[in-house]
Amino acid sequence: MLRSVTVTEVGPRDGLQLIAKPVSTEAKIAWIKALHAAGLRDIEVGSFVSPRLVPQMADSAAVVAQALRIEGLKVYALAANLKGAMAAYEAGAHIIVIPLSASDRHSRANVNKGTLEHIAAIGDIIEWLRAQPRPVRIDCVTASAFGCSVAGTVPLGDVVAAAKALALAGADRITLADTVGHAHPALVRDTVRAVQDAVGPLLQKLHLHDTMGLGLANALMGLQEGIREFDACMGGLGGCPFAPGASGNIVTEDLVFMLESMGFATHVDLPALLAARAAIAPHLPAQALRGGVPVAGIPSTYQPASGCMH
Amino acid sequence: MLRSVTVTEVGPRDGLQLIAKPVSTEAKIAWIKALHAAGLRDIEVGSFVSPRLVPQMADSAAVVAQALRIEGLKVYALAANLKGAMAAYEAGAHIIVIPLSASDRHSRANVNKGTLEHIAAIGDIIEWLRAQPRPVRIDCVTASAFGCSVAGTVPLGDVVAAAKALALAGADRITLADTVGHAHPALVRDTVRAVQDAVGPLLQKLHLHDTMGLGLANALMGLQEGIREFDACMGGLGGCPFAPGASGNIVTEDLVFMLESMGFATHVDLPALLAARAAIAPHLPAQALRGGVPVAGIPSTYQPASGCMH
Repeated sequence: MLRSVTVTEVGPRDGLQLIAKPVSTEAKIAWIKALHAAGLRDIEVGSFVSPRLVPQMADSAAVVAQALRIEGLKVYALAANLKGAMAAYEAGAHIIVIPLSASDRHSRANVNKGTLEHIAAIGDIIEWLRAQPRPVRIDCVTASAFGCSVAGTVPLGDVVAAAKALALAGADRITLADTVGHAHPALVRDTVRAVQDAVGPLLQKLHLHDTMGLGLANALMGLQEGIREFDACMGGLGGCPFAPGASGNIVTEDLVFMLESMGFATHVDLPALLAARAAIAPHLPAQALRGGVPVAGIPSTYQPASGCMH
Repeated sequence: MLRSVTVTEVGPRDGLQLIAKPVSTEAKIAWIKALHAAGLRDIEVGSFVSPRLVPQMADSAAVVAQALRIEGLKVYALAANLKGAMAAYEAGAHIIVIPLSASDRHSRANVNKGTLEHIAAIGDIIEWLRAQPRPVRIDCVTASAFGCSVAGTVPLGDVVAAAKALALAGADRITLADTVGHAHPALVRDTVRAVQDAVGPLLQKLHLHDTMGLGLANALMGLQEGIREFDACMGGLGGCPFAPGASGNIVTEDLVFMLESMGFATHVDLPALLAARAAIAPHLPAQALRGGVPVAGIPSTYQPASGCMH
């Protein structure tokens, strides 16, 4: 069993997208550099979506361009449609993240297309990206994979069908996202197994929210089912503007503490990660950053699997 | 595998003990009644310890007496020494909870006795209780079973030895407590297995804190290792006055949501449990009650294993 786990920090994208007060490109880059200094090598830095709907992401091309100068950093950018994917490609993103909602009603609310129609559009996006001279990795996300604030339950068959369709459309990797944070460990286990049966090792990652306080329990179950990549947000930032009631992502600091304590190397240095909070905290509303480890401090007994890196 | 789980609400004891402003006996009883109305049948209502050290618990005899009138309620009370156990017995508690720290240094800080000396004292307490006409259940707690704020790491051998000594002293049941909240799932798994090997089914319960945000992940691991009883505090109240840095217990509301969603019947009605917060919230500092489910609300898709009880 693989004893290393990739943590992708999605704070600069999922974490900031709902923050009303604009965060400058400079502040975003300073934060991304601090995250990189803590050992994070996978960071979702922005999204190419309508600046009218998500003004905080309007500078994503500049953020991607500057993030590309950070040595060894894999630069992820989200794109919701072909125009966005073209812009993400032009900006130079290494990995383009494309979401598809497994909930037809959530899909219509989010991108004004039903799930099936959206899969066809994603097929066109992938075809366009594959035709470009620079190779990019295409990570497709099955959103609302564990429930939907609009439709409620999302049948497991719909989640499997969406993941399978993304595989057939040519995704390099598939992520299952608990967009509204209604997942529980048994549902994570059942869904991961069913999607693994359908798409095999293409299923690589879970994107979990902590809405009900179950985020790390769900991550633990994913880990037990063989998942070795997780999205997370520093301080548990984040949410979905189109999923009312959804609160933040799982807390990167606490996730790293759990994984490292359990013997899974993330190559993230926890003290440096806590220090990186200072790079973004002044730009956020008070109390926006939460977390267990950041508040309580790292116990003296902490023995990270990655060893001491500094 | 047993598909029901007992959740013991320890808020009136562990939750309130650190609250500086006195909560009246009347308010405590109103809260206990509301918790009972939500289906909780196991409630730790107070402790018989020095009223100088823990003034909030000074009315525990009155609380126990009134709690005994609530039909079907199992009334738990904590006692740290013989004098306290005598008072708990005289008050009429059904279950007397006796803690022992597996960390010698924590034990000295807490009760001015090393672990070994304290085991001898607990033997005397159990002997006294067994000699009384009314039978009581004696739940012994191995505290600092997953680390200690004073000593740091607590060797697994010390935890096993403490649990074994409690078994030999005549405990009816043994609980492992993460007093400072430094546990992680792999440590929970290893410790539960080692203690099960030593004392078998006497190990019944985990008492977990959420200091690092890992509380429910630790509970999930316990569940997977066969544990079917958990302590929890409404709103994640609680902490240990002698363990600096320790934050609250796992959140009862979120634990019930997780267990019921996973198919484990707790016989706790979640809407009624959320309503019970109103009975205690006015008596607590602002923001004292936290939790995922209480803030986000119960998802429309919630399907409790216990079924609808109202």
